[in-house]
Order: sequence, then structure tokens, then C-alpha cells
Amino acid sequence: MDVHETMPEGATAADVAGAHAEDLRVQGQYGVHYRSYWVDETDGKIFCLVEAPDAETAARVHRESHGLVADRIFEVVEGS
Amino acid sequence: MDVHETMPEGATAADVAGAHAEDLRVQGQYGVHYRSYWVDETDGKIFCLVEAPDAETAARVHRESHGLVADRIFEVVEGS
Repeated sequence: MDVHETMPEGATAADVAGAHAEDLRVQGQYGVHYRSYWVDETDGKIFCLVEAPDAETAARVHRESHGLVADRIFEVVEGS
Repeated sequence: MDVHETMPEGATAADVAGAHAEDLRVQGQYGVHYRSYWVDETDGKIFCLVEAPDAETAARVHRESHGLVADRIFEVVEGS
């Protein structure tokens, strides 16, 4: 689970959707799967749930696809 | 999406599963649905995805079921 603490100035949920589409385009070559994301436009937060070999590879997809890397990445296990 | 920044000392993912089960037992009377959660045992973080009438009602379920309320709650929209 990654956390983007501050959305870029003026960015909207639609912009995030566009960035996510870029992630989906790039991720396959790295064995990464950006599964879901959640946006709080008011507080400027984004959470991305991603399956990846490791945190750095997950970040690499963000970096190469749109350049907006997360502030924090947590290696989580999904509850049942 | 709520964020628990620090799991209680010594708590494990199994403990979180137990707490989540308590949420499920209590939530119905408040129109709340704790849908999924993710745990990072190493960093002590928990993320709970919850549908609720408002943030306070979501927090109330945590408070009444096990007492471990989140540090932050963000009103998010799920991306497609």
C-alpha cells in the first residue's frame, strides 16, 4: 500500500485516473499490478494498493509512467 | 480509508483479525461496513477500508467493538 500525502496543486480525481492508466500500461514489464486506488481530493491523499516484487519496483512503475512517486510504501498483508 | 499509525505493543496480524471480527459484529446497527483491511506488522500500520455514513460513525464502530480507533480517517473515492 502506498500513500501519496499531497496531490499536485490543482490535480483532480480525473488526473489521478489518467496517471493510474499510465501505471497499468507500464507495469506488466516489471511484474507489478496496481490493483486499486482511493483518492481524497479534499485532503489531497491517494492510496494505491499494488502487488509487486518489492517496494522499489512498485515505485519504479510510478516513476516511469507519470513521475509521481508515493511518499511512503508499506508492505502489507490483506486481512480476510 | 482509516490509518492506524502504530499497532499496540506486541500486537500481531492475528490480533488485528480478531479486532476486525469484532467490527463486523458491531457495525450493522450503525450502517457501517468494514470492507477490507491491510496490515504491515513490521511498521505497525493498519489501513481499514470502510463504508459508513460519516467518519465519526466509522470510528464509533472501532471504539465500541475493541477501542482501537484510527489516527486518521480520509473520505476517499475508489478509482476504477
